[in-house]
Amino acid sequence: MEFRHATEKDLAAIVRLLADDALGAGRERYEQPLPQAYVGAFSAIQKQHGNFILLAVERAEVIGCLQLTLIPGLARLGMTRAQIEGVRVAAAHRGKGIGEALFEQAIGYAREQGCGLVQLTTDKSRDDAHRFYQRLGFVESHVGMKLMLADD
Amino acid sequence: MEFRHATEKDLAAIVRLLADDALGAGRERYEQPLPQAYVGAFSAIQKQHGNFILLAVERAEVIGCLQLTLIPGLARLGMTRAQIEGVRVAAAHRGKGIGEALFEQAIGYAREQGCGLVQLTTDKSRDDAHRFYQRLGFVESHVGMKLMLADD
Repeated sequence: MEFRHATEKDLAAIVRLLADDALGAGRERYEQPLPQAYVGAFSAIQKQHGNFILLAVERAEVIGCLQLTLIPGLARLGMTRAQIEGVRVAAAHRGKGIGEALFEQAIGYAREQGCGLVQLTTDKSRDDAHRFYQRLGFVESHVGMKLMLADD
Repeated sequence: MEFRHATEKDLAAIVRLLADDALGAGRERYEQPLPQAYVGAFSAIQKQHGNFILLAVERAEVIGCLQLTLIPGLARLGMTRAQIEGVRVAAAHRGKGIGEALFEQAIGYAREQGCGLVQLTTDKSRDDAHRFYQRLGFVESHVGMKLMLADD
């Protein structure tokens, strides 16, 4: 298994992973051709300093992904945060430590970049995910609140 | 009251606000000269596209602040999120609707920029903040998890 940053060629494989999920199934559109919104979003990610998608790849197949965004801020003595979104492991590859390995890479990168913390929010319904993150050392110290501006 | 983006000249006033808080008091250092970490962090914020600090200013005094970061992402059909961190209103000016007015500005900006949602996390101990955000329409749908990498 190798880890690398996503390029536009990986976009369909990533959308497929995002849709392969209890909540993602109702939110994403994995179609050919891929909806243009994903192409535009990938381009916007690439243009923002410190924002990228990390992939776990096995035999040229994308089997896991997460998005990592570095967010410099003033709070906590000018601490930079590493924020994680969109974590997925392909259904056929779950339970093999791929999520842990992806996070190990992401956390290592955050340390190298001088981040003081790694943060994420996870839907209240994802009990398995909460236990997974707790095993990695994450603490459920905060409430995650969202205000929807558009139809989801 | 006016709203504007912060410049480096506002930095001491912002750190003063960040420290004027039950949790911030133990995390920040409002001193003269200002710790260099804040200066470096402000410069990093200014260099990142879509990341800025919004101020509420009355008679040339900074009385409220929040940080807004646009985060383009693939999930939810390539939705861009607006993330809020570091929300403060000066103690002498609380209860006068300044927080609501700051959020109205921030949410309006997020809409203009095509964001699909505004998100934030708030410490579990901040009961008043939870009620404030719920009044604004935020839904407590997620768990906010943090992994500390450095001593806080």
